[in-house]
Amino acid sequence: MAQVIADRRDIDFVLHEQLEVGNFSKHEAYAEFTKKTVDLIVNEARNLAVKEILPLQKIGDEQGCKFEAGKVTVPQEFHKVYELFCEGEWLAMNEDPEWGGQGMPRAVSLAASDYFNGANYSFIMYPGLTHGAAKLVEAFGTDEQKRIFLKKMYTGEWTGTMLLTEPEAGSDVGALTTTAVKNDDGTYSLSGNKIFISSGEHDLTENIIHPVLARIEGAPEGTRGISLFLAPKFRVNEDGSLGEFNDVVCTGIEHKMGIHGNSTCSLTLGGKGQCIGTLLGEENKGMRAMFLMMNEARALVGQQGFGCASASYMNAVNYARERVQGKNLLQMMDPEASDVAIIQHPDVRRMLLKMKSLVEGMRSLIYYHGYLDDLKKLTDDADEKARYQGMLELLTPIVKGYITDRAFEVCSDGIQVYGGYGFIQEYPQEQLLRDCKITQIYEGTNGIQAMDLLGRKLGMNKGKPVMDLLGEMNKIIAAAKGIEGLEDFAADFETAVNKLGEVGIHMGTTAMSPKVLNAFSFAHPFMEATGDVVMAWMLLWRATIAAQKMEKAKKKDKAFYEGQVKSAEYFIKAMLPITMGKMSAILANTGAAVEISEDAFGGK
Amino acid sequence: MAQVIADRRDIDFVLHEQLEVGNFSKHEAYAEFTKKTVDLIVNEARNLAVKEILPLQKIGDEQGCKFEAGKVTVPQEFHKVYELFCEGEWLAMNEDPEWGGQGMPRAVSLAASDYFNGANYSFIMYPGLTHGAAKLVEAFGTDEQKRIFLKKMYTGEWTGTMLLTEPEAGSDVGALTTTAVKNDDGTYSLSGNKIFISSGEHDLTENIIHPVLARIEGAPEGTRGISLFLAPKFRVNEDGSLGEFNDVVCTGIEHKMGIHGNSTCSLTLGGKGQCIGTLLGEENKGMRAMFLMMNEARALVGQQGFGCASASYMNAVNYARERVQGKNLLQMMDPEASDVAIIQHPDVRRMLLKMKSLVEGMRSLIYYHGYLDDLKKLTDDADEKARYQGMLELLTPIVKGYITDRAFEVCSDGIQVYGGYGFIQEYPQEQLLRDCKITQIYEGTNGIQAMDLLGRKLGMNKGKPVMDLLGEMNKIIAAAKGIEGLEDFAADFETAVNKLGEVGIHMGTTAMSPKVLNAFSFAHPFMEATGDVVMAWMLLWRATIAAQKMEKAKKKDKAFYEGQVKSAEYFIKAMLPITMGKMSAILANTGAAVEISEDAFGGK
Repeated sequence: MAQVIADRRDIDFVLHEQLEVGNFSKHEAYAEFTKKTVDLIVNEARNLAVKEILPLQKIGDEQGCKFEAGKVTVPQEFHKVYELFCEGEWLAMNEDPEWGGQGMPRAVSLAASDYFNGANYSFIMYPGLTHGAAKLVEAFGTDEQKRIFLKKMYTGEWTGTMLLTEPEAGSDVGALTTTAVKNDDGTYSLSGNKIFISSGEHDLTENIIHPVLARIEGAPEGTRGISLFLAPKFRVNEDGSLGEFNDVVCTGIEHKMGIHGNSTCSLTLGGKGQCIGTLLGEENKGMRAMFLMMNEARALVGQQGFGCASASYMNAVNYARERVQGKNLLQMMDPEASDVAIIQHPDVRRMLLKMKSLVEGMRSLIYYHGYLDDLKKLTDDADEKARYQGMLELLTPIVKGYITDRAFEVCSDGIQVYGGYGFIQEYPQEQLLRDCKITQIYEGTNGIQAMDLLGRKLGMNKGKPVMDLLGEMNKIIAAAKGIEGLEDFAADFETAVNKLGEVGIHMGTTAMSPKVLNAFSFAHPFMEATGDVVMAWMLLWRATIAAQKMEKAKKKDKAFYEGQVKSAEYFIKAMLPITMGKMSAILANTGAAVEISEDAFGGK
Repeated sequence: MAQVIADRRDIDFVLHEQLEVGNFSKHEAYAEFTKKTVDLIVNEARNLAVKEILPLQKIGDEQGCKFEAGKVTVPQEFHKVYELFCEGEWLAMNEDPEWGGQGMPRAVSLAASDYFNGANYSFIMYPGLTHGAAKLVEAFGTDEQKRIFLKKMYTGEWTGTMLLTEPEAGSDVGALTTTAVKNDDGTYSLSGNKIFISSGEHDLTENIIHPVLARIEGAPEGTRGISLFLAPKFRVNEDGSLGEFNDVVCTGIEHKMGIHGNSTCSLTLGGKGQCIGTLLGEENKGMRAMFLMMNEARALVGQQGFGCASASYMNAVNYARERVQGKNLLQMMDPEASDVAIIQHPDVRRMLLKMKSLVEGMRSLIYYHGYLDDLKKLTDDADEKARYQGMLELLTPIVKGYITDRAFEVCSDGIQVYGGYGFIQEYPQEQLLRDCKITQIYEGTNGIQAMDLLGRKLGMNKGKPVMDLLGEMNKIIAAAKGIEGLEDFAADFETAVNKLGEVGIHMGTTAMSPKVLNAFSFAHPFMEATGDVVMAWMLLWRATIAAQKMEKAKKKDKAFYEGQVKSAEYFIKAMLPITMGKMSAILANTGAAVEISEDAFGGK
């Protein structure tokens, strides 16, 4: 069975029928990205993903990375494909062509990433992290830092990382102890131990550029005293050639549940010799720099989790079409009846439609999140810019936290559809689940995302982004109410949106009251409920488009549009009532989790 | 951090305060199983589990089983511990001492199994499957079959398996093609290919006894033509000594997501020579035999999943006590505040209390399920026997299907509490999740369990078991209403029970109507909702006991009892509203999953 990774018809639907990204080409900044060009880009991405990247998925999982004497090797097969990826200029799709980027709209690049992440996201992490590190250089680097590093990073000649976590500083970044001592020439000598560094050491490229969070001698404790530095694996001479080893020593790699193809390294800086770094941005403003990159970094993790879910759904639905097992339930009693493909069984259909609706809703949300960034870029109106930025920031914890939680669920159902074969490594499903799991954890655990939503985003700008978002939802309600067959879904969705408003006020009020701990013990359920409502919004939005086109559509499109209405129906009728229950649970506001004594948890 | 596997205080609570199993000793059949003896048994099981079995967990996962030229070897360390396990007579705890059993109440043996499964369930599968196979011999074997096989199996000298699945016959057992041809001496020559055979081949014992489902030449198609046979790996002479190889050839083992320590084999019967089997029970009654064993076999899978969840919770709560990270939320703004153990963070507490309430509810349900079997055995009243059997059968799909689904969720949260460390193989959490996953699939996928609940159990005996179960729930409601502090929980629970009654009637009616496919597309949500209500019942039951004892209890017990009330509060206030939503979704009864066309699922 050929693996298709992602549903091309669905990608095209979001790009051209929901978001109409072809319209971007009316703007000078995106003039060359006509619908035709966008389609070519997606074609190319799909080809590369299916033909080159996907075949590395099992290889990466089975061989993993090898560590020996401070050196890490990735599977041999990764090298050629990494080169192809860089040659295709896929690493910096949205960035300035001056620095090696392609300058394409974010919403479009997300369609390409859809294929890349779904094909093998532990491989894509190498260029993905490089892009993130290079963005830091672009945003905060001096002209000299940019000249030396930026293009080589955006073109993938050198890769990048992010040296943040330490053994005692995970979720609590402020606890880090890596130190920086200023040298006479203005550089800094870094020393400390970092762990869980993705792509921290490998043999794909000749140099690796590490943005490093560290504390300058004498700086304040906590997050206020953290600065950001740039420390390459090999020092770089004036002319861009490599100098001596910069004493970033890999002391080991982790053996993990998944993403075996990506090296997760422990690094020691300045343990034996000297690790020289240059300041990136201002002293003690390292956390601020991190925050500026956060929306993009967290959205990337949402895309990674989503990629696993999308691939798992594609595999499941095609497996269910081919796997023959048991009779159709309506013919159970007929001894002459033939066995049927399991896609005919009601429980398999339930799983598939649940997976489908979630995958579609997640895809729309991810693209929409990028689309907001494009809109922000294209407008000159400061209020408009602020509006898009506000909604984008509000949605970030949903894109990261909610999507990765749901993606994991989809991957689990994706195993279930395969039955016993789902548990066997010969089939792709179990790896997708194992790979997906980390997306709920890294770049801020989903508990942290939920705190971000409740503690920062809900009350941001006096709630304006929340109101803007609810306004967008109400537009879809109004549209759906006028479309035959959708009125009832619109009414249900409206009830849910209103209840979410009530829950939002309850959460905001409680978080500002002496019951603040209670509020935060419901931060995750609140993120779940909010995410569900966002899914329903996206799916109803899709249905409003599909329902109007269904009548006149040709056969294949007709089925697709029918599927859109069914996804919306399933989510709104079979899942949104559960969301209503989740919201009731939040409003009931039990203090049990906060009040229970530590001893009463048992287990000692 | 020492791993404690299961919460001893909680085990004792269920045994002695909820079910009062010490009372069994008033009956002749269980006279020796006084409270004191029960406690000794649990002590011994815990010692063996912690000291011997648990250390094999990582070894089993990392080394796995090896296949070479038809032979399978398990990790060397398994051998000694397997011997200890058999010497301790743990394999057949409930069985007749005449055949090597210990004759203990099922509820008591479940406490021991709690430790064994949680310590390393892929190891425990060897004796576990042996027990199941031996039960078939005991139930359906001739005197001669029992004489030759039974004691050697119950004592673990020989292990057992179950040869059921074939490549084209998984969930649809009736499609199997293994054939049996009768020989002149009354034996049968078996030939066919079986897959996914747990413990199918290994080097732990000198012989392996395979119950085999096969079709006698000329027998009807489907399940009506299936017979059960007994085919040993080595034929057995009259005197019990081993004869020649019986041509059960292992052709390979699966590489799986988890349970690496247990060999999952492909077996070919009669491929080269002759595989001789003897009929077990009657011709064409093989499926009936399977069904008689089903409650126990499926309950065992529930225990396996639960074992993973229980261990994951224990690890998580103790990790959360030790792992220091971040400040207490109330002191966030105080730069002088120290970092705290993560058990102080509201979102960690939410995860822990959710895990705790589920683990406790599942433990009570599992023991109660076994307890019903004990009650059935101890009564001479036919009506009573039927009553216990009915409730037991009704609860079986909940014990298997609901518990393994929830156990998987608990294991996922168990990773989440560890943050990044949860993803690393050095820590136990990720293995528990990988091992747990198969419990949702084998011994009938959870989709099959849901169909069993809806299609068989709901209407069984005109709904009497359902009414009996609701009657038991109402007893707890009545008790809780009279206890200060529980009145409100009792009222919420009563509302949920009443709604479940309504949903049950809706599902039963729909399943008998032309909308039968609709009904079955909600079979799994119905199992979920039913399971939730059962959890709430068990937790409220526990709370009624704990609330009354709390006042006068000593410090440690006081905390435990407080924890019982908090578990009930959390489940009823924060989770049961979601269940109410699940039930509303069922009642909304969308036909989307049934009506959507195959093409509309996309993905091709």
